[in-house]
Amino acid sequence: MKKIALIAFDALTDIDLFLMWDILARNRQDWQVQILGKSGTLRSAHGLLIDTHGSLDEANQADVVLFSSGKEGVPAAIADSEFMSAFRLDPARQLIGSICAGAFILARLGLLPEGRAATHPEAREALRASGVLPDDRPFMYHGNVATAGGCLAALYLVGWIVERLFGAEKRRDTLRPVLPAGQADVFEALIVSAIRQGAGCTA
Amino acid sequence: MKKIALIAFDALTDIDLFLMWDILARNRQDWQVQILGKSGTLRSAHGLLIDTHGSLDEANQADVVLFSSGKEGVPAAIADSEFMSAFRLDPARQLIGSICAGAFILARLGLLPEGRAATHPEAREALRASGVLPDDRPFMYHGNVATAGGCLAALYLVGWIVERLFGAEKRRDTLRPVLPAGQADVFEALIVSAIRQGAGCTA
Repeated sequence: MKKIALIAFDALTDIDLFLMWDILARNRQDWQVQILGKSGTLRSAHGLLIDTHGSLDEANQADVVLFSSGKEGVPAAIADSEFMSAFRLDPARQLIGSICAGAFILARLGLLPEGRAATHPEAREALRASGVLPDDRPFMYHGNVATAGGCLAALYLVGWIVERLFGAEKRRDTLRPVLPAGQADVFEALIVSAIRQGAGCTA
Repeated sequence: MKKIALIAFDALTDIDLFLMWDILARNRQDWQVQILGKSGTLRSAHGLLIDTHGSLDEANQADVVLFSSGKEGVPAAIADSEFMSAFRLDPARQLIGSICAGAFILARLGLLPEGRAATHPEAREALRASGVLPDDRPFMYHGNVATAGGCLAALYLVGWIVERLFGAEKRRDTLRPVLPAGQADVFEALIVSAIRQGAGCTA
């Protein structure tokens, strides 16, 4: 049973947590997914209360660690030494990823040594200013560290995680239930293309 | 300022509420979106606590009423006379919609007189058994009542709502922030096509 940690914080972008959560929480045989945060209850950017399932340092023992995003939540999290110091992540033994502005956290944790990441279009210039080159793709990865940009690119990030852990068939089975009715083929093509084109540094 | 009500209930499919919520809650100028439920706190199918913003009967004064879904949540809601009797909806003055199994609620409320709806692929046979023909499209509408199937078809449902109320440019501006980075054109084509092809009864 793999352990998947979704990292949450106050003022996170609601869908950047809940889309990964919903896709992954449907499977209770192959993995356990938990929302981890600094406190027992967080508040999203749009004002929803979110109960967390464990503390941030539990991410250090997880097989997969995925950072959510938030225009105001990410800068606040990065400025919070208690938040940042909780992590002892290791790409040699963990799959690590981020959606949208979550890439800023990966950068600060030293997890983007190549200095390149996918992020939300509106965060590109701030990412560049922080010393990380914004990639043009909605999803990219280097080894075991992946970044995705634009909320629905969570499809590609989660798809990559599941395919890496359990293969392409499990990836299809995992994503199919959330795809628009009758459009599984269209979205399968988008997902496969994004994952295949996400390898390495050349766009 | 338009009022948009998202109808929630215990055991709802997490993303079927949160995707509509996140897309719509980003705009605070043109509309107010609220999650309405029978009680102050609900629990999602995957176990999240959801605080509601108002009671179900507030939907009767809303400009837009959108029903979420849930494999176990919808049958329980339909069997709950307190839930069902709260609604006095009127397609003559309201835009009304559902995602996935939410179509069963619309049918029971008498809002699908043509007897046809889009729903989640896994709910098609149950919909047929309940006397409503499952449509092949991910999104369809008749007049002011729309149904969508497959969680991400919420893009089409919400897009249709915003376009009906405020036009195509506002629809684009509303959906763009959640689309995968660099893929706005691909998704715009999918969204426009789904909305255009969603008109009326012929698939």
